[in-house]
Amino acid sequence: MNHKHKQYRGYLIDLDGTVYRGTESIPEATDFIKRLQDAEIPYLFLTNNTTRTRQMVVDKLAGHGITATVDQIYTPSLATRDYLLDKADTKKPLSVYIVGEIGLYQALLQAGFVLDNEHPDYVVVGLDNDLTYDKVKKAVLAIRSGSNFIGTNADKNLPNEEGLVPGAGSVIAFVEAAVQKKALYIGKPERIIVDMALKQLDVARDDVILVGDNYDTDIKAGINSALDSLLVYTGVSTKNQVAQQPIKPTYEINDLTEWKL
Amino acid sequence: MNHKHKQYRGYLIDLDGTVYRGTESIPEATDFIKRLQDAEIPYLFLTNNTTRTRQMVVDKLAGHGITATVDQIYTPSLATRDYLLDKADTKKPLSVYIVGEIGLYQALLQAGFVLDNEHPDYVVVGLDNDLTYDKVKKAVLAIRSGSNFIGTNADKNLPNEEGLVPGAGSVIAFVEAAVQKKALYIGKPERIIVDMALKQLDVARDDVILVGDNYDTDIKAGINSALDSLLVYTGVSTKNQVAQQPIKPTYEINDLTEWKL
Repeated sequence: MNHKHKQYRGYLIDLDGTVYRGTESIPEATDFIKRLQDAEIPYLFLTNNTTRTRQMVVDKLAGHGITATVDQIYTPSLATRDYLLDKADTKKPLSVYIVGEIGLYQALLQAGFVLDNEHPDYVVVGLDNDLTYDKVKKAVLAIRSGSNFIGTNADKNLPNEEGLVPGAGSVIAFVEAAVQKKALYIGKPERIIVDMALKQLDVARDDVILVGDNYDTDIKAGINSALDSLLVYTGVSTKNQVAQQPIKPTYEINDLTEWKL
Repeated sequence: MNHKHKQYRGYLIDLDGTVYRGTESIPEATDFIKRLQDAEIPYLFLTNNTTRTRQMVVDKLAGHGITATVDQIYTPSLATRDYLLDKADTKKPLSVYIVGEIGLYQALLQAGFVLDNEHPDYVVVGLDNDLTYDKVKKAVLAIRSGSNFIGTNADKNLPNEEGLVPGAGSVIAFVEAAVQKKALYIGKPERIIVDMALKQLDVARDDVILVGDNYDTDIKAGINSALDSLLVYTGVSTKNQVAQQPIKPTYEINDLTEWKL
């Protein structure tokens, strides 16, 4: 790649596959984050994981030798919060019904939204390892009665130590089948989460680059948001897969040592 | 309609919407079943409900004043059993992993199939009011490791006193999203269940008619199986809906008093 690339003034950085691989650290990424810190370049970690709170993500990063603050963590839980805050009437707090875990609950409840199991303004569906038929039934009945339907992120699978287990996108597909309509998706590769993250980063779109390992979520999020993108081959996407894509990432590298700030 | 229709020597009869509506009886249907009994014409009740055992269905029919034996009840649970018995090697019993309720469990376990949560020959997915993420995860990991994938029936919704709640087809859509392939469906409108029911009824295909209230399941099952069909307007399908269908039922009636044996 051409090392004389544009100098970016802000970074949106994926986590799993980019900064670490599950419990495994990626030293080149740890070093890259240190370089960003030394150069005082602002960045956010942009992950599609909605199950963890921001503090839980901060703690996980600390385990990989990376110092971060909760304000640097941005997820579909936060983006859904910010999307709903934009929609909220100042007179009456929005009501929500949530299918999800602590990361999603905390983001929405701390923002002042109230829970309503029957006639919420919004039904928000994400990954829930304690999912039951009854939770989905409540979501379906509410959406069929007129509640708006948000899906946190479309990832159909999640790699873990057991294999490829069902992700948020599969849970959302369950609800979509039963309500016979599609959710409004918030997470990568949708533009919504990128727009919301840019607001929080407070750097002009043209000066920001999105870094990730997954063409279908990270790079497509860049493409959908008119944001430059950097694909790093330390995670799920392979060079062969990306070679077949009609739209390429702005840059491709083997690991983050190749990237000069 | 022309009352001088062909004389049928066997009947396959849907239940909900045709013989009763939930807890409500349909007297014209009760009378029709009595006429079949008096004329000694063989028939089976052909329902897509997999959650009840045959005895539970017999008891429900008794509550509507209809005498039936367990041998007269045929469901995707039984059709899955018969389909798997056809596939079974005589040397080793087939292993199954089941997402479903007592009706499905009983049909498969009484046939001698053994349960295997990890590497079953077949994963069979149906409606389960006690569905959990963990049950679906086990199904997904097994199918991804090579198990065959059967869906009992494609009904996305089920009407009950709460509204249109998620049906088997929505649960199967959850698994399909996570394994990224389609199930083999057994229930109406598939031909498989009709072929299996005809074997049990033991009357030639040309002499059998399928009676039901639902164009998308009952009548399509007739069409897919080259079986004559009788749509009775006492359930979900309306005349307007059926008028828009390119292929019509063989006969259409308002209620079963209009049908002469």
